[in-house]
Amino acid sequence: MAGSKPVAWIINIGTELTIGRIVNTNGAWLARELTLRGVDVRRIVVVPDYEEDVVSVIRDAVSNSRIVITTGGLGPTVDDRTLEFIAKALGLNLVVNEEALEMVKEKYAAKGLELTPDREKMAIMPEGARPIPNPVGTAPGAHISINGVDLFALPGVPSEMEAMFKGYVARVVEAIAPRTCISEKGIVVEGYPESELAPILKKLAKKYEKAYIKSHPKGGELTRPVIEVKVMVSAEECAEADRVAEAILEEFKSLLASLKPRRV
Amino acid sequence: MAGSKPVAWIINIGTELTIGRIVNTNGAWLARELTLRGVDVRRIVVVPDYEEDVVSVIRDAVSNSRIVITTGGLGPTVDDRTLEFIAKALGLNLVVNEEALEMVKEKYAAKGLELTPDREKMAIMPEGARPIPNPVGTAPGAHISINGVDLFALPGVPSEMEAMFKGYVARVVEAIAPRTCISEKGIVVEGYPESELAPILKKLAKKYEKAYIKSHPKGGELTRPVIEVKVMVSAEECAEADRVAEAILEEFKSLLASLKPRRV
Repeated sequence: MAGSKPVAWIINIGTELTIGRIVNTNGAWLARELTLRGVDVRRIVVVPDYEEDVVSVIRDAVSNSRIVITTGGLGPTVDDRTLEFIAKALGLNLVVNEEALEMVKEKYAAKGLELTPDREKMAIMPEGARPIPNPVGTAPGAHISINGVDLFALPGVPSEMEAMFKGYVARVVEAIAPRTCISEKGIVVEGYPESELAPILKKLAKKYEKAYIKSHPKGGELTRPVIEVKVMVSAEECAEADRVAEAILEEFKSLLASLKPRRV
Repeated sequence: MAGSKPVAWIINIGTELTIGRIVNTNGAWLARELTLRGVDVRRIVVVPDYEEDVVSVIRDAVSNSRIVITTGGLGPTVDDRTLEFIAKALGLNLVVNEEALEMVKEKYAAKGLELTPDREKMAIMPEGARPIPNPVGTAPGAHISINGVDLFALPGVPSEMEAMFKGYVARVVEAIAPRTCISEKGIVVEGYPESELAPILKKLAKKYEKAYIKSHPKGGELTRPVIEVKVMVSAEECAEADRVAEAILEEFKSLLASLKPRRV
């Protein structure tokens, strides 16, 4: 699952996440979409919206990955400062982005509302950024290409973030990542503690080094063991990914049968 | 909300998280529990279970915080290597922890099962670690105190992680953090775009610097705006926290009324 795939870091910004008021569903959603497009997600980092923290994480991310996606902090309020922090982290000036300003102006004009300073703020972006259209809400996102890294700043509202990923980010990511198809197959095993399955899984993991083979305990290890075994294989062609995933599962089943472990 | 509070980093380890197969509910749960105990959570970092990534995040965490909590990678399978990675990151030897071995042995003995190498592995810990009893599952956690940092390694299964936090970690955290009570109050405002509320919130944030005052859009900014305004105040005494939170909300309501913003 590793190797020549482009590495991505996802950064979810917002104190509502670090105080545990909300669960980071945006991180998982983006991780899934990137993985399915052949990207190797190495971090999902949640940070509070303090300048020091966000600047530090952005710098870390651009030094260690090919793709960076941030969510949160693009709105009109005083604590929406993500683009300012990104500019600081990357050493870029903040400028009014004319294209973004048009986008924002249009949205409010359609409702008969003027452009207050708080609204205009949503069009202030690091120099050289391309605004990402927001088909659902008002704040545009920003796409910044710098030193071989593509950084996308998206809003924190899930419906807006998802629409902007699908409408803009996905296309850029697909051009960066190699063509990949992922096959995911699973089986649920009842009555065997995970520790009984461990030697079998170890053997398979060694044989199929590039596959993702994992066991997830669903019940108690010793009370009512229910183990989900998941196999994920990526390959250029879907048929090949399917074939290998199926082969691993079949081998798992026959090893399980031959082992006849003591059932709980 | 910042200041003299002890800083914590939460690290959630597991490729099932970085491929987006599951949402990181453990991170939010721990963030909430720590925040309520007066801890300042500065990072929730999700990493795949690769040695290079986990070692790097652990080093980063112990250099930047007072409390570190990891979840995941304590079980009997070959990919459960968190304690090995922690030992490497901190420069500690791995040893069989006799106390942990007793805990594991007892669990399996009660079911008439022997101690296989995969099971014994759950008792191999960095030297000097104190095992954390696991009342729900089999793998003990580990508590490591090093260079003024307390690091707790907990399992990834939510029911085990939560029980071990409540039964062991909470007590240590409460001794580290200053006595704190947090009051959280909210109000839902309909019909005003978030950008109309921005100047009011800016004013309040400036006046009540230590409070957490945020607006969360629930509807569309221009279609059907529904904004949740949340106020969180922490103080040594609960009555004081309550009083300030209430005062901020009252001031917000009167500012809103006096502003008479154009409703959408």
